[in-house]
Formats: sequence, structure tokens, C-alpha cells
Amino acid sequence: MSAPRRPRVGHIEFLNCLPIYWGLMRSGALADVELTKAPPDVLNDKLVAGDLDIGPISLVEYLRHADELVVLRDIAVGSDGPVLSVNLVHTRPLAELTRVALGSTSRTGVLLARILLAGRYDNTPEYFRTAPDLPGMLREADGAVVIGDVALKAMSEGDHDGVTVTDLGAAWREWTGLPMVFAVWAARREYAAAHPGLVKDVHEAFVRSTELARAELPAVVASAVRWEPFDTDLLAEYYRALDFSLGDRQVDGLREFARRAAALGEVPPLPADGPVFFAA
Amino acid sequence: MSAPRRPRVGHIEFLNCLPIYWGLMRSGALADVELTKAPPDVLNDKLVAGDLDIGPISLVEYLRHADELVVLRDIAVGSDGPVLSVNLVHTRPLAELTRVALGSTSRTGVLLARILLAGRYDNTPEYFRTAPDLPGMLREADGAVVIGDVALKAMSEGDHDGVTVTDLGAAWREWTGLPMVFAVWAARREYAAAHPGLVKDVHEAFVRSTELARAELPAVVASAVRWEPFDTDLLAEYYRALDFSLGDRQVDGLREFARRAAALGEVPPLPADGPVFFAA
Repeated sequence: MSAPRRPRVGHIEFLNCLPIYWGLMRSGALADVELTKAPPDVLNDKLVAGDLDIGPISLVEYLRHADELVVLRDIAVGSDGPVLSVNLVHTRPLAELTRVALGSTSRTGVLLARILLAGRYDNTPEYFRTAPDLPGMLREADGAVVIGDVALKAMSEGDHDGVTVTDLGAAWREWTGLPMVFAVWAARREYAAAHPGLVKDVHEAFVRSTELARAELPAVVASAVRWEPFDTDLLAEYYRALDFSLGDRQVDGLREFARRAAALGEVPPLPADGPVFFAA
Repeated sequence: MSAPRRPRVGHIEFLNCLPIYWGLMRSGALADVELTKAPPDVLNDKLVAGDLDIGPISLVEYLRHADELVVLRDIAVGSDGPVLSVNLVHTRPLAELTRVALGSTSRTGVLLARILLAGRYDNTPEYFRTAPDLPGMLREADGAVVIGDVALKAMSEGDHDGVTVTDLGAAWREWTGLPMVFAVWAARREYAAAHPGLVKDVHEAFVRSTELARAELPAVVASAVRWEPFDTDLLAEYYRALDFSLGDRQVDGLREFARRAAALGEVPPLPADGPVFFAA
């Protein structure tokens, strides 16, 4: 007797991805995957190493490994305007920043900050990576890129005492007119070729899960507020700001980011017909 | 702003505990726990070390750490007769075994075998722990205690070529007239005292989850058969054999096992009024 192995699937265990998990907790879909919940940088590495078959990957890491992966349509983490949780916090005007601390948990956010400062403000300050401790970062630098809870907390406190919080999703949208995509969902190319039916099932489960969360947003907020250090209004605003779709406009935003990131030499160019999507 | 931490809860990632997970996947209860899925021996150690707040623990390990834990009522893994997946596989009659290999993944099953051989067959063979590789074990010994998939496979193949499979759940029941309890669910005593409401919520979620699985047994079997190397009939028989309850008869069985294990010097005596149950 032999049996297939469950697909090894990643899930980002952060607040911003609760909507993507929401329906999985109700549909029974978790019975048919081997789920690894971890921070995004850990999942990036596991998908690239082949320790996961399917999972989220930061846009930058996807672009660096696009030839090994196929992108799943209709699911992503991005924003079409403010994202609230990917911020450049700074004590001088953006055009005058001299030294910017890059939070070590971010991949795409920190590159977005560099692209924005170089392209829109003609500014190439000194950059250094460090732990995402905002007060510590601002003691060492006049700008700091932070994501996640740290960023959301800074945004909720707002500008004060000479500190300005620039929402990088909003800044990208103002500059390019396009949505920003921070992470996509991808499958290992060989895995998708060998097991298209399993990838299709997982893909549909994720898309349905997110649709359910969209339809039940107050319940998602009520669940998150039990355990997170943010109030109901902020969480509701946050979940409304997040864009979990990956349609034509989001793909245009992805391509624009890829073009600018490649121009900085940070990622290989995306082929003209890229990204390659999974087709069942 | 501060927020409570989600309870850290363990779940056995094996086939026999799919029914306990079944309803958790549908009720949304997973949003309110930090779940660690792992083999039972890993979960035993984590609960004892305080790295989990609530979780399953093998009966033997519970008895060794009863003063640190409170037992949750109405949920357990046991059997009131054959269990199919905790077996003594042997090549000589039980009363004549000379050397018995104990599978390293089992805690309660291996002690049950020793209690049975000593108490019912007046036999104290030599015992040694080893990896749960059944052919290898039977090359080195005339008896082997195995659990889980290895045991279920041996049971499904049945007696053959001088090899006999003794179901230890059935043997216990024949001998004592009582159900056998292999694992209980427990909470750390201090955690339960500090967070009775959270323990109550988790406890109810587990009990409801198992009730749902009982009501939907064909669907549980259909889910498991997709991924496990066993056929529908065997899995259905297996899930019907497993007893996830912990009522008065099961507690009597637990106490009887505790008494006999303590008589062998393997665990401290359970207090006369033990086990101590969680009360919200």
C-alpha cells in the first residue's frame, strides 16, 4: 500500500495573514496539507530550498528565484494605496535622509524604500540592516524601514516630535499610480508539474479562504483583537487596507516594481512575459 | 496596549488523532490557540517542560508528573477492547517470551506490555528499547511492542508464519474488564489556575471537535484514506475502535493501570483521589 504525501504548504503566522487562514480553519482544507506556520523570511527560505511545495514568498525573493517557481493567481499580500504596516519612519525630509536603517525582517519593504528614495527623491543614503527596534534604529539613523506590528504601532501613533511616518504602500501608489504587491503565493515549478491537481486544490482553498474573510471582516477583526495589541478600529482599517487579490492591476504593479528593482541591480530582470503563472 | 498570549496547545499529528483535530478545522477554534503539531513523545516533553500550556500526554508521563498537571475530562485516546495500533508482535507464546524489543516511540504501550506479561503470564523477559522497525526487532527478540502505523500494518496483515499479533488494548480489557487509556489531555496546573477561562475554551473546543468527528466518521475516513497507506475498511474499523472519551469507566481503567505501574516501580502512586481534574 502506498499513499501520496500531503503538499507541504507555508502560512505567514502574522496578523496581516489571518484573513488568508480564516477560511482554512472552517473548510476542513487543513486536513489535506502539511502546514508550516512561520515568519515570512523563514517561509521564503524554505520554499526556495524545496522544503515547502507551495507558499507565500516575498516579491523580492520570488524575483530572485522566478525560474524555479510558478505564481498562483488571485492571491497575494499588497495594497492599492496605504498598507499601514510597511513604513519608512524618518526624522528628516525624505530627500535629505543620509543614513537609513533597514529592518532585518523585511525583504520587499526595504527595497521599496530604496527604489522610492532613489527614483522619486534622487537620494541614495547609506543603508544598513539591523534588528527591527524602532527607537534603536532612529538613534543610529535618520530613517528606518519597519514592517508588521512595529510598523503598525508607529502608524497608529502618527507623526510626532519631528518623527514622520511614510506609508510605503501609499507612497508607491502616489508615485506610480499602481498597487504594490509585497508577497505572492508560488509553487515549486517541478512540484506543480508533477502534482497539478494538488496545487489546484491548495490554490482554490487559499482563494476561498480569503474570500470568506472578506465577507466576514468584523469576525476576523473580533478574533484578532482578542490577541493583538491593537484596537478594533485600527485592525478594521488595517484589514480593509490590505489587498489580497492578484489581478491585472496588481500584476502591473508587480512588473513595475520588478523593472525598477532590476534597474538597481537587486534582482534579475523579469522576462517580458513574466511572471509565469500556475495553470492546472 | 497589551494583549493576552494565545494558549500554547499540543496536537498529536498521527492518524489516530485526526478525529480530535477534525472539528478544530471547522469551528475556527484554531484562531485562538498557538498549535504545535508533533509526535506524542515530543509533546509529552514540551508539556512537562512548560513549553506547552495544554496538550495530550501519554498516561505514563502524566503519572510521573501528576503533581504539575490537571487532567481534562471527557477526552483521551484509549480503547474499550481492541485498539489495533498498540501491539505486541511475537514469535513464541506470551508466557515463554525471553527477550522483548520495546519500540522507542511508545511510553504507555511498552509499560502495558510489561504489566501484562508480568501480571497475567508471570513472565519477566529481558527488555530493550530500540527503533520501531518490526522486522529488525524480531531478528533480535522473540517479542516486539510497536504502536501507530507500524502496529496497524502488522494488525492488518494478521498472524502468519509463526508471528502472532496481540492487541494490547484487547488483552488489557480481557484481563481487567476495563478500558485502557493511552493518553490524556492535561493543562499545566499553574496555567489552569491563572487562565481557567482559556483552558475551558480549549477543552470545550477539543471535546466538540471529537464529537463532530464521531458524527461524521465516514468523512473522517475518506479524508484519512487519501493520505494514509491503509484502505477504507481498515481505517473505519480503526476509528470505531478508538475511544476518545474519558468517563467513569475510563478513569477506573486509568487508576487500575496506575496501580499496577506503581507496583512495578515505574511511576509514583496516584493519590487515592487522583487524578486531579481541571475545574473551570
